[in-house]
Amino acid sequence: MIKEVNYRVIYGDTDCGNVMYYGNYLRLFEIGRTELIRSTGLSYKEIEEEKGIILPVVEVFAKYRAPAKYDDLLTIKTSLKELKTHKIVFEYKIFKNTTLLTEGYTVHVPINREGKIVKFPEDIYKILKNLLKK
Amino acid sequence: MIKEVNYRVIYGDTDCGNVMYYGNYLRLFEIGRTELIRSTGLSYKEIEEEKGIILPVVEVFAKYRAPAKYDDLLTIKTSLKELKTHKIVFEYKIFKNTTLLTEGYTVHVPINREGKIVKFPEDIYKILKNLLKK
Amino acid sequence: MIKEVNYRVIYGDTDCGNVMYYGNYLRLFEIGRTELIRSTGLSYKEIEEEKGIILPVVEVFAKYRAPAKYDDLLTIKTSLKELKTHKIVFEYKIFKNTTLLTEGYTVHVPINREGKIVKFPEDIYKILKNLLKK
Amino acid sequence: MIKEVNYRVIYGDTDCGNVMYYGNYLRLFEIGRTELIRSTGLSYKEIEEEKGIILPVVEVFAKYRAPAKYDDLLTIKTSLKELKTHKIVFEYKIFKNTTLLTEGYTVHVPINREGKIVKFPEDIYKILKNLLKK
Repeated sequence: MIKEVNYRVIYGDTDCGNVMYYGNYLRLFEIGRTELIRSTGLSYKEIEEEKGIILPVVEVFAKYRAPAKYDDLLTIKTSLKELKTHKIVFEYKIFKNTTLLTEGYTVHVPINREGKIVKFPEDIYKILKNLLKK
Repeated sequence: MIKEVNYRVIYGDTDCGNVMYYGNYLRLFEIGRTELIRSTGLSYKEIEEEKGIILPVVEVFAKYRAPAKYDDLLTIKTSLKELKTHKIVFEYKIFKNTTLLTEGYTVHVPINREGKIVKFPEDIYKILKNLLKK
Repeated sequence: MIKEVNYRVIYGDTDCGNVMYYGNYLRLFEIGRTELIRSTGLSYKEIEEEKGIILPVVEVFAKYRAPAKYDDLLTIKTSLKELKTHKIVFEYKIFKNTTLLTEGYTVHVPINREGKIVKFPEDIYKILKNLLKK
Repeated sequence: MIKEVNYRVIYGDTDCGNVMYYGNYLRLFEIGRTELIRSTGLSYKEIEEEKGIILPVVEVFAKYRAPAKYDDLLTIKTSLKELKTHKIVFEYKIFKNTTLLTEGYTVHVPINREGKIVKFPEDIYKILKNLLKK
């Protein structure tokens, strides 16, 4: 399962090097995983509010192959790379047309309202598991 | 009372027009008012946590006279323009050396933990009042 | 002519006050005016690259009536408020469903590649003028 | 050689999870490497403008161990990890007091004004090399 989201680069995303600022790709990664999760029918906001689970980022990696520029229409392709009881890994590829600009991943752990690392509740785990399927 | 804070412009503040992005000046306004409040001896964080009062922005205005550029060392000059029982107005002037680049103001209202507009607690009001003095 | 654009609030837009950071609304204003201009058939990028005219912001005002929150689906409604030979004013209203959250305006002046204020070239002026019509 | 820079977390850095937004640490990485380079006596801006060399980020990695929160006073510790003729790697550790919150690295390649990867000019290479020394 790969979720595709379009994103239009604005002035506010770019820097004086005439390209998207390297930190702003992490906003695009967030958009990607949020919409991938939403495609299960359960939004990340619901996971937080109804299940009391948050998924902080514990690791991020990005490789910048070619720059995104002002007004480019990008496609963010996000997939679930790994799901363990205490860990979830998302993978991102950002394209301009057929050119891969940036790729990367984020690692997250489930935390409860008290801030302790917990296992994914079974119902959420099952729903997310479906994202691993073709 | 005018509080001066220095700020060095980074790539992440600029845009592909080769100048600071207009929205990022509002980060500098925030730095300015936070350090002005801290100069009273009571930080904004303490006002929030100990007094249960937050000061959301209800209005902002900025006039951009000349652009800030990458690696510029700016000076943010902040002062208290107006203090009423239900309202506080901060004024900002951002300089590069002696050149005024941007000026503006923000209007805030005191809100309690339930989200209701309240009067400033008397002790906070007195402390902030001192900022109006020369 | 009012251009409507939808925008989904991400974590990266919000702050620890649990609402959208006041500076990030200026990103939404940018999205709004960019898409309003694009609806004329001539994009802002083309105005810059083909006509050599840029439109820096010289003034911004925003009034925050109610907060936008994480995962809110907003509507940015943008219109052209004023067009003079040396000045253009855009007006913004940001809604969540039927609730007006934020409104504001930006004032821009046309600048040529040498950084001098110029009159709008006639063809661009005519195209933008159409936005004033119903 | 380790360069230390202090940074005060503002509202605009945080998100509704009550911690610094994961993408904003990359702004702190930028502050860290910029000030490390400046400590050689040659600023990054001068490398760009006088030498015609830019150093785009081609890879970033960050590991988030503990969150930075609003108004925290952080210390960014930056060092040069690797220097090759066509590559430079910076390493970052962000502390709150003695607690390591975040660590990471960025990989950059030297590019000339035409956008081609080039060797570091010898004078810059020598200056940067000094950063590897104790």
